[in-house]
Amino acid sequence: MDTRRFITIEGIEGAGKTSALTTVSDWIIARGDDPLITREPGGTALGEELRAVLLGHREQGMSAEAEVLLMFAARAEHLETVIKPALQAGRWVICDRFTDASLAYQGGGRGLGVERVRGLAEWLMGDLRPGLTLWLDLPVATGLARAAGRSAPDRFESEHQRFFEAVRSAYAQIARTEPDRIRRVDASPALERVQATITTILSARFDD
Amino acid sequence: MDTRRFITIEGIEGAGKTSALTTVSDWIIARGDDPLITREPGGTALGEELRAVLLGHREQGMSAEAEVLLMFAARAEHLETVIKPALQAGRWVICDRFTDASLAYQGGGRGLGVERVRGLAEWLMGDLRPGLTLWLDLPVATGLARAAGRSAPDRFESEHQRFFEAVRSAYAQIARTEPDRIRRVDASPALERVQATITTILSARFDD
Repeated sequence: MDTRRFITIEGIEGAGKTSALTTVSDWIIARGDDPLITREPGGTALGEELRAVLLGHREQGMSAEAEVLLMFAARAEHLETVIKPALQAGRWVICDRFTDASLAYQGGGRGLGVERVRGLAEWLMGDLRPGLTLWLDLPVATGLARAAGRSAPDRFESEHQRFFEAVRSAYAQIARTEPDRIRRVDASPALERVQATITTILSARFDD
Repeated sequence: MDTRRFITIEGIEGAGKTSALTTVSDWIIARGDDPLITREPGGTALGEELRAVLLGHREQGMSAEAEVLLMFAARAEHLETVIKPALQAGRWVICDRFTDASLAYQGGGRGLGVERVRGLAEWLMGDLRPGLTLWLDLPVATGLARAAGRSAPDRFESEHQRFFEAVRSAYAQIARTEPDRIRRVDASPALERVQATITTILSARFDD
């Protein structure tokens, strides 16, 4: 399957994923195409149920293995019923978080290890990868301050700063191993600067 | 971890798992011990939520990969919070269905393949195995007739006979690869005969 038009957006809370998603979407629409916009966990009826299960366990928690398996259950359904059919029809797909989020959050943050989670990713997807991943990177304190101003913290947001430092380190580790697919975007500057960086990356990658 | 006292009960619908569970439990209680009785999917708050999600999707269905990942998510939580602590405390654990059910139902019945599901089992559990598995085996038509007389069919029960033939074949395949752990129990005869077979197996395995 051709995954070149499969774009994922990654980053810690407050990194600006929603704005980035709009920037990418606007760029694609300006070319005259109609992108599919989706998110993980979620994106399907099953995924939204599992998203609610995950967020609902913010008090009692669950084992890291159970959490990552739930993420991949939602992903399996999402891939099969949403992402693959859209790609097969030639559509662009923009996804708010994908497998790299599991490597970073459960592998890095929850301590399972990036390689352990990668084993599960390979079990599900073989060598299927997004064509481009935009990793919105900024200092943890900056991201958490932005996220705190936006909404009530969810289970992941309310965990401690050290957790997010581990998530950020894992993202950096993954980005080093796949520099062509994963492009780091400095998410610290003002919104317009970040948007400009993203459109520059998109044009360099996709404009003929 | 010592898993000798970890007993699982497997079989298709109508094979008599609930009766077998009582037989095993009574045998252990008669020795003066207090077994933990649990079931999959379920056995934890998270597991019961996921059991409801699985059964609730009887109409629209879900991908086989999503189904097996949900089963293993429930299993991860069950292992970590229920089964391992009980075994570590020296208790007997009797579990109504465990990993072999995923190999048989999703691997055989849903067509993922026993080896593919085994890959996921190894990802989660390494070489952890029950000490004894009682596989209650009987012809599919007999089992379905018994199950139909008992309750409204759930999603799995309402699927067609060919599905259960594939499940039964997968159980047979698994049993051949681990003949010491997995003991086939002929579940066709009257209840008392089946109970006698089970207590004979238990005595041969555990009595000094």
